[in-house]
Amino acid sequence: PPAWGRAARQPPGLLRLPGLPLTPCRAFSNNKILVELDESSGIATMKLKSPPVNSLSLDLLTEFCISLEKLENDRACRGVILTSAVPKIFSSGLDITEMCGKSTEHYAEFWRAVQETWLRLYGSNMVTVAVVNGSSPAGGCLLALSCDYRIMVDNPKFSIGLNEAQLGIVAPFWFKDTFVNIVGHRVAECSLQLGSLYPAPEAHKIGLVDELVPEEKLQEKAAAVMAQWLALPDHARQLTKSMMKKAVMDRLVAHREEDVQNFISFISKESIQKSLRMYMEMLKKKK
Amino acid sequence: PPAWGRAARQPPGLLRLPGLPLTPCRAFSNNKILVELDESSGIATMKLKSPPVNSLSLDLLTEFCISLEKLENDRACRGVILTSAVPKIFSSGLDITEMCGKSTEHYAEFWRAVQETWLRLYGSNMVTVAVVNGSSPAGGCLLALSCDYRIMVDNPKFSIGLNEAQLGIVAPFWFKDTFVNIVGHRVAECSLQLGSLYPAPEAHKIGLVDELVPEEKLQEKAAAVMAQWLALPDHARQLTKSMMKKAVMDRLVAHREEDVQNFISFISKESIQKSLRMYMEMLKKKK
Amino acid sequence: PPAWGRAARQPPGLLRLPGLPLTPCRAFSNNKILVELDESSGIATMKLKSPPVNSLSLDLLTEFCISLEKLENDRACRGVILTSAVPKIFSSGLDITEMCGKSTEHYAEFWRAVQETWLRLYGSNMVTVAVVNGSSPAGGCLLALSCDYRIMVDNPKFSIGLNEAQLGIVAPFWFKDTFVNIVGHRVAECSLQLGSLYPAPEAHKIGLVDELVPEEKLQEKAAAVMAQWLALPDHARQLTKSMMKKAVMDRLVAHREEDVQNFISFISKESIQKSLRMYMEMLKKKK
Repeated sequence: PPAWGRAARQPPGLLRLPGLPLTPCRAFSNNKILVELDESSGIATMKLKSPPVNSLSLDLLTEFCISLEKLENDRACRGVILTSAVPKIFSSGLDITEMCGKSTEHYAEFWRAVQETWLRLYGSNMVTVAVVNGSSPAGGCLLALSCDYRIMVDNPKFSIGLNEAQLGIVAPFWFKDTFVNIVGHRVAECSLQLGSLYPAPEAHKIGLVDELVPEEKLQEKAAAVMAQWLALPDHARQLTKSMMKKAVMDRLVAHREEDVQNFISFISKESIQKSLRMYMEMLKKKK
Repeated sequence: PPAWGRAARQPPGLLRLPGLPLTPCRAFSNNKILVELDESSGIATMKLKSPPVNSLSLDLLTEFCISLEKLENDRACRGVILTSAVPKIFSSGLDITEMCGKSTEHYAEFWRAVQETWLRLYGSNMVTVAVVNGSSPAGGCLLALSCDYRIMVDNPKFSIGLNEAQLGIVAPFWFKDTFVNIVGHRVAECSLQLGSLYPAPEAHKIGLVDELVPEEKLQEKAAAVMAQWLALPDHARQLTKSMMKKAVMDRLVAHREEDVQNFISFISKESIQKSLRMYMEMLKKKK
Repeated sequence: PPAWGRAARQPPGLLRLPGLPLTPCRAFSNNKILVELDESSGIATMKLKSPPVNSLSLDLLTEFCISLEKLENDRACRGVILTSAVPKIFSSGLDITEMCGKSTEHYAEFWRAVQETWLRLYGSNMVTVAVVNGSSPAGGCLLALSCDYRIMVDNPKFSIGLNEAQLGIVAPFWFKDTFVNIVGHRVAECSLQLGSLYPAPEAHKIGLVDELVPEEKLQEKAAAVMAQWLALPDHARQLTKSMMKKAVMDRLVAHREEDVQNFISFISKESIQKSLRMYMEMLKKKK
């Protein structure tokens, strides 16, 4: 199983995660993510570049999974910095057009790609650092939450959070589990029910991001954090990471197909479709 | 199942809770709780009015469940403010006279009413805000903990906490689970073992209450909090709430009868009966 | 089952832990731990006295378990203060010589003693207070984490933490569970992956220790904390403690032999043996 292939040494008390097969290979545009690997440091940078707002479309997610797997299997790469090439936005979250007026098969394919993205990023053997250089609602926030460490630009104009409830939809249980493990149960409970978006300083206060840094220092800080995490022996760090993430990942792996079916039946409801159409109309008028 | 009837839309990954049937209808004095529903705002106020200290007797709990169910089934009602009509006390907790020198059948009936109260309040589809306008030990604290949000009067004379251990008794596991989800494991561990009661400012510091407000501003603040929570679409908020509360509720639902039997065998011990009699004597002398 | 024998009264919702049998009696040097019991207060002091650094050898752990069991069964004893008789060090953790170049049988015996120590200390019916009067890495930190309360000397020269990852090894899941219950999931996640050691003031900030006290006040403070915890009725405090610790203990009890086998296969790897030998060489040169 490639994603966990490097953790050759079994830790006491740990089970190996089952392989996480990619969805069957499909055609995709290979231009929504810029990947650069610095072989001397072993650090890759993945930049989301899908203007205007880095929506997480099926194409982008597929490209994300394939890019991440390539890095995972490249022995020259030990860490990944995830950031945005689009000014003012990290990612606006799941692409609503993928959830609106499409076939059941399309919903299923899209949701499997969302699951796959999270399983691969959250469970990556590499050190993953999110450099949140703009706003990051909903699915964009999940991407950041799935990294080992979060650095955000120190600017209250940008906000981050799982605001699904504001749109009339519900964050799935594994978004919630990921969130609870970072901010604790009580903050997550209020935040998810209110669909709260936190300006950077407040996000830092509740631990949703680990550090705030002026925009011009983001790269330098990311490199420093990476150096600190890469100073540890890979195998011990990887086994420890796996021990910390395992329970939450196992829960989705055990209920993966059920979660797809739940998504389909929820998103197919006429009331939900109507909400999403209204939301998209609103976004269009905003422009 | 009435309590969950409004959550008609199934969320991804959520199971519907089984119906929580009321204990068979019994005669009860309908005057321990004042219920007022403001139809224009959709907000009801439930005021505990059982002087001198709002003890949670079987009568009060039965009335509580029935009142709450009526509101739950009333489409005009979307939120409930829970507070006290008795000065200086929110609720002194479970009525010790119900646990002292009574029959096994009585203990069982009483404990089922305690369980039912928690299941209905904690699992309510409505937004629930506790306005803790006086002291709130033990079962009184549990009532507050079971709401979505807690506002307490900013006065160090009033305290709140799960102080059961001080009385020689043990908070049941679902009191503990509710508490841990709010203050975290470490604070709960110390607090439950020491039977700590926290003056309002300290309760706020550990997150046991969410806000402190001067007495004359309690109503205004409760209305503001309610407005914030009711601004969300009901169905998304309800499904999210259910996702957050589900694990803890399921645990009691799965062990409900066992929990009743444990309560009976614990409370029937002569040593425990003796402690409770001594405690009641002490309370009488205090007056 | 001796360790839990005093909790004669079953709490609501609690199961009795299975007896935790000592490993078959073996010869051991009875001089690595000083035990003094003050019968008037009911408080015993256990001082680790195994210079130069209180390494947790098989002999020390065996003596620890036997000493603790004696106190557990002594009705005159209600609380234990755990501290060090060696200046500047609480305990340096598991003795690496026990894990290096030994037989499979030896590794198994050693690991069972480590498990036994944790199960007995974490699950003790007595009030346990760690007085961390020096540095306390890895297994030394676990000893402190397994007590009800931690007081540390207020000196940034001394540090504490689960730094296993720095040595290329992995803290077992029950070290992790114990840690998470004290500092929360997010802090534990970073801390274990980075193998962080916290100077006393930082350890206090993240809740890893409960109080910082100048060296000359350690005893006085320990007595005060003990008095506060012993003021509660034993049976209620014990049942509450058991309720809080149970889930984590049950997990090891259910997987105990598997955990031994995992330890053996991990520690027997040539790569791990090599790391440990290099680490020991480095320690020797340091002297």
